[in-house]
Amino acid sequence: MGIVVQQIDRAPREAIASLGRFGVATIHEAQGRHGYLGPSLRPIFPGAHMAGSALTVSVPPCDNWMIHVAVEQCQDGDILVVAPTSPSDAGYFGELLATALDVRGVRGLVIDAGCRDVVELQAMGFPVWSRYISATGTVKETLGDVNLPVVCGAQTVHPGDVIVADDDGVVVVPRARAAAVAQASAEREQREAEIRSRYRDGELSLDRGGMRDRLADKGLRYVDRSES
Amino acid sequence: MGIVVQQIDRAPREAIASLGRFGVATIHEAQGRHGYLGPSLRPIFPGAHMAGSALTVSVPPCDNWMIHVAVEQCQDGDILVVAPTSPSDAGYFGELLATALDVRGVRGLVIDAGCRDVVELQAMGFPVWSRYISATGTVKETLGDVNLPVVCGAQTVHPGDVIVADDDGVVVVPRARAAAVAQASAEREQREAEIRSRYRDGELSLDRGGMRDRLADKGLRYVDRSES
Amino acid sequence: MGIVVQQIDRAPREAIASLGRFGVATIHEAQGRHGYLGPSLRPIFPGAHMAGSALTVSVPPCDNWMIHVAVEQCQDGDILVVAPTSPSDAGYFGELLATALDVRGVRGLVIDAGCRDVVELQAMGFPVWSRYISATGTVKETLGDVNLPVVCGAQTVHPGDVIVADDDGVVVVPRARAAAVAQASAEREQREAEIRSRYRDGELSLDRGGMRDRLADKGLRYVDRSES
Amino acid sequence: MGIVVQQIDRAPREAIASLGRFGVATIHEAQGRHGYLGPSLRPIFPGAHMAGSALTVSVPPCDNWMIHVAVEQCQDGDILVVAPTSPSDAGYFGELLATALDVRGVRGLVIDAGCRDVVELQAMGFPVWSRYISATGTVKETLGDVNLPVVCGAQTVHPGDVIVADDDGVVVVPRARAAAVAQASAEREQREAEIRSRYRDGELSLDRGGMRDRLADKGLRYVDRSES
Amino acid sequence: MGIVVQQIDRAPREAIASLGRFGVATIHEAQGRHGYLGPSLRPIFPGAHMAGSALTVSVPPCDNWMIHVAVEQCQDGDILVVAPTSPSDAGYFGELLATALDVRGVRGLVIDAGCRDVVELQAMGFPVWSRYISATGTVKETLGDVNLPVVCGAQTVHPGDVIVADDDGVVVVPRARAAAVAQASAEREQREAEIRSRYRDGELSLDRGGMRDRLADKGLRYVDRSES
Amino acid sequence: MGIVVQQIDRAPREAIASLGRFGVATIHEAQGRHGYLGPSLRPIFPGAHMAGSALTVSVPPCDNWMIHVAVEQCQDGDILVVAPTSPSDAGYFGELLATALDVRGVRGLVIDAGCRDVVELQAMGFPVWSRYISATGTVKETLGDVNLPVVCGAQTVHPGDVIVADDDGVVVVPRARAAAVAQASAEREQREAEIRSRYRDGELSLDRGGMRDRLADKGLRYVDRSES
Repeated sequence: MGIVVQQIDRAPREAIASLGRFGVATIHEAQGRHGYLGPSLRPIFPGAHMAGSALTVSVPPCDNWMIHVAVEQCQDGDILVVAPTSPSDAGYFGELLATALDVRGVRGLVIDAGCRDVVELQAMGFPVWSRYISATGTVKETLGDVNLPVVCGAQTVHPGDVIVADDDGVVVVPRARAAAVAQASAEREQREAEIRSRYRDGELSLDRGGMRDRLADKGLRYVDRSES
Repeated sequence: MGIVVQQIDRAPREAIASLGRFGVATIHEAQGRHGYLGPSLRPIFPGAHMAGSALTVSVPPCDNWMIHVAVEQCQDGDILVVAPTSPSDAGYFGELLATALDVRGVRGLVIDAGCRDVVELQAMGFPVWSRYISATGTVKETLGDVNLPVVCGAQTVHPGDVIVADDDGVVVVPRARAAAVAQASAEREQREAEIRSRYRDGELSLDRGGMRDRLADKGLRYVDRSES
Repeated sequence: MGIVVQQIDRAPREAIASLGRFGVATIHEAQGRHGYLGPSLRPIFPGAHMAGSALTVSVPPCDNWMIHVAVEQCQDGDILVVAPTSPSDAGYFGELLATALDVRGVRGLVIDAGCRDVVELQAMGFPVWSRYISATGTVKETLGDVNLPVVCGAQTVHPGDVIVADDDGVVVVPRARAAAVAQASAEREQREAEIRSRYRDGELSLDRGGMRDRLADKGLRYVDRSES
Repeated sequence: MGIVVQQIDRAPREAIASLGRFGVATIHEAQGRHGYLGPSLRPIFPGAHMAGSALTVSVPPCDNWMIHVAVEQCQDGDILVVAPTSPSDAGYFGELLATALDVRGVRGLVIDAGCRDVVELQAMGFPVWSRYISATGTVKETLGDVNLPVVCGAQTVHPGDVIVADDDGVVVVPRARAAAVAQASAEREQREAEIRSRYRDGELSLDRGGMRDRLADKGLRYVDRSES
Repeated sequence: MGIVVQQIDRAPREAIASLGRFGVATIHEAQGRHGYLGPSLRPIFPGAHMAGSALTVSVPPCDNWMIHVAVEQCQDGDILVVAPTSPSDAGYFGELLATALDVRGVRGLVIDAGCRDVVELQAMGFPVWSRYISATGTVKETLGDVNLPVVCGAQTVHPGDVIVADDDGVVVVPRARAAAVAQASAEREQREAEIRSRYRDGELSLDRGGMRDRLADKGLRYVDRSES
Repeated sequence: MGIVVQQIDRAPREAIASLGRFGVATIHEAQGRHGYLGPSLRPIFPGAHMAGSALTVSVPPCDNWMIHVAVEQCQDGDILVVAPTSPSDAGYFGELLATALDVRGVRGLVIDAGCRDVVELQAMGFPVWSRYISATGTVKETLGDVNLPVVCGAQTVHPGDVIVADDDGVVVVPRARAAAVAQASAEREQREAEIRSRYRDGELSLDRGGMRDRLADKGLRYVDRSES
């Protein structure tokens, strides 16, 4: 502990912009159902959507010192990803740190712990996905790391990975796969548009792709009430 | 497992319409405090209110195949009630399935697992009560059942029961009791309107129904600060 | 059990008004990080903010009788603080009791259990912070106490303490410390305004108060990618 | 609420005895993976194993009155299955009630709430599977039911169903299926003995039943380190 | 924070010895169902039973410095009661600290956080009741308090209160009430012995104290199967 | 998904043997408080202790097919580390799979999900650390991976890392650091032996290492009762 990596490879701007056009559920599917940070990381206010390059921070329980250290490493387009080394429901982050990040162009925060000042953060439009909303403050006593890999929401996040977040939660896309996943997301959205159109016409998914046959093979039985 | 019951007795339209005029808390009281699916099933967006006839689906963990099977069984006025056979926080349901249900007149979903695409579902006005919001996808590998009784939110739901849901959660009313519970709900609301009016005039509940006597019998003591 | 203390010392009006100008996170910091009721007590609708003098109630599980008893003890400016003697997710409180409290000038409710009628409570503007939203009703069978100290959200609340609540949660300030904490909150807000202004100019917290030296003393190392 | 059903059909003695020869996991498999009461109902001491006919009790939160009512209905070979109507961590059951049940030949208790006096219960050899161990006492104020179906551990239990419990938890077998499930359990155990023997000889499950082909069909790829 | 109170009034030796003859459930009942620290504080090994005078410690999350400070304040017959100021699952306590306490005659530990070295602690017979078993270590950076009141297991514990713990959990008895509660426990045990004896003779609780009448008044109905 | 890596670098035998001489808490400290899999992964029976080289498996929820695939890859001295791709409380593992692993010399299992057959596993002495004990069975329908990195207990485990587990839980040591951590563990144990000896002589930790000065610098105040 106690390491700040200063040069990291960030995800390319165009890859971030491409991925930012899609929702979290679409991207998660498009990369083979990997990288979702789980249902416990929730937006502190509804309707937010962000995409950016991960700048990772590990923090001791109830100690936000390393977030102050991380501010200096941030660039325009980054997203701070903060993971405590031991579970904590403290409020590591509030409006003042958001102000410091906002002037550097940081797009938002993902934290596997608590956040506070939610009224002020919503007013300034700084989006946060957190496990808790908590007024509990933190100390500045113990070191963590900046820009080493962290486990956040049970997923490994490397610095420079792409983070996308919306009301469904947060997904991480490895930097090297960002362009391919954006492409796959676009293709998936195209397919979904076709399905949506067919569903609107009343078509059943059962009637496509041999689904009725597969169900029958598995043993699905349709019964009248009398048999049940 | 692997059974689809095709003919079920649905709750009568008028009973559903009657019950749909009341809130979940009122109905729950009116049927003797039975049938509440508990505080863990929450609406994915605020302000929704629905009533309909339950179409039940049991699903394996992380497998939404049977929801696709259930679509075909749905009629106008139904509400899908989905229970996993083992706890799961996967996102079984999203905007595409909602589209397929919406064209058939389904009024909403209750699921003791996860839901995704909450932005899109709110935009299309398709209400969902779920235990999780989760982008995790599901597979189509294993059978469950359609229209057999399920345990959802620790309550047994039979196909054709009436489901009512609002911001307080979800309540199930057995089909055979729907009319009686609607009547009891109306009476309860009438009584509550009278109580509300009296409370607004400053009356105390303590001064009615012999409550002070019952409290004294139980041993309630009023003390001044000096004694406490 | 079974005691109602009738005379309590309430927090002075001016102290409540002073504290009511600040957010929960600010007050929590200003009193040395004490008195936060934790992240599990959440507002039932967003945007509410209240301050008042605590009127405490202990209730048995699933029994709200003592809340009816407490109504009579309430005065203008009070906040009801309700703690179950054993964990309960029942809905102890709804729109009728809120009406009775509202006409007496009660400002809101804090309850370490469940609340219902959230649509109606939002419509009438009666704010509640609770652990659960739950339609489960309660009985009136067993006594608790009014105006004895309670443990709510893992904090001890005495009658007459000041309660402040907003979207970050709930904080309790001991009556005797209310004026001092209000003063400390004002000073803290002043300091934060200065910091905010400096952060907006791009200043780093690292560059103030000898923080870089302290970090170096602890062993923080800045490395290039090549070394990491 | 407030109903005691006095005549119930109990599971036949031989079926109970047959099922009691098998472990919970075996029975659960043998009846098609139904009826497991989940991992949260744990034995209060290790090594217990029981089988019997369910006598069901629903209880209000923190109120064990109906267990006293149920004692009278118990017969030799019964197992008490207790479910609260709303979640409760109270200690509904202790050594005195166990004594009363023991003299009537009751084999043990399954309760989706709390139990206390674990030292004494272990000393007298009365087995209990519960969600909590809790010294919190209960009152005797409110009615529940005896011998109506209950939802316990998210499973519906009818009076007269067979209950089997061991260190893996609790399983319920519908009375009408008891003999068939006992037969299926015996067959399963026979098959497992063969598999065990083959595994001891070093045989791989992969080499039987066409498993390698199915895996290949699904796309499983074996790679050397260099490719990974 | 940062206060060590050096002179405290300890519970009298005889009161501790008297209370130590009873189980936690008995004492909890005997003092009117107050003071139980809840089902989440569990013994790290079965069969332990202790009674002593509370020496209270508040600790920051993941920081056990104040336990080292507290050792010096301990006397023969004390029990350490440790509460974190914010929830923490760290392992604050292990075999070395137990050794230091053991030589001073401390009887055991209650901690609303984590404990480690459970094999060693069991070997040396030093009993601990904790919320977690956790190998996570702690730091020595931030102050807490010694011998100020703490909230532990949602109960307020004052220094000098009597703590009793067994396999049912932990109960706190206020110092001033210790003798009276010991007396009430003895009476309760006497009554329970009589009840136990009657139960062993097959007597039903229903047949005493007018219970059948009270049940009938509440509306309990006994039905045959045919009516149910 | 669907990849089996066949050649992995295992931790050296001597490093495993060295680490296996220490407890989990000691190793966790010795490697700078990294690698603990948290308090939720518990041994299914007390007193077990194992050390080995990780063979990693990712599994879909409620699907243990890949454990069957993994058996073939196991060698003497391995420990299976299994992580579900989505949370699951199913019982993935029982006595038959343990038999298959046992004949290949596998030392035990770590699984961030459920295990069953605990009686049989204890009888055969095959140790398991799991999040749940659960009789729920699994299917064989969907692929996962063998010998890719997994996140288990919120820690990243690579194939070939050293796993050590005892009653305090599970710790992972990166393969490359195994020898160094074993050395550091030995040194730590040596230091602890000295401390233990001094504690037994009644020495206080406060009196060493300038701890009293550091506490005074932080502002610790010793007060008599009268001041507090």
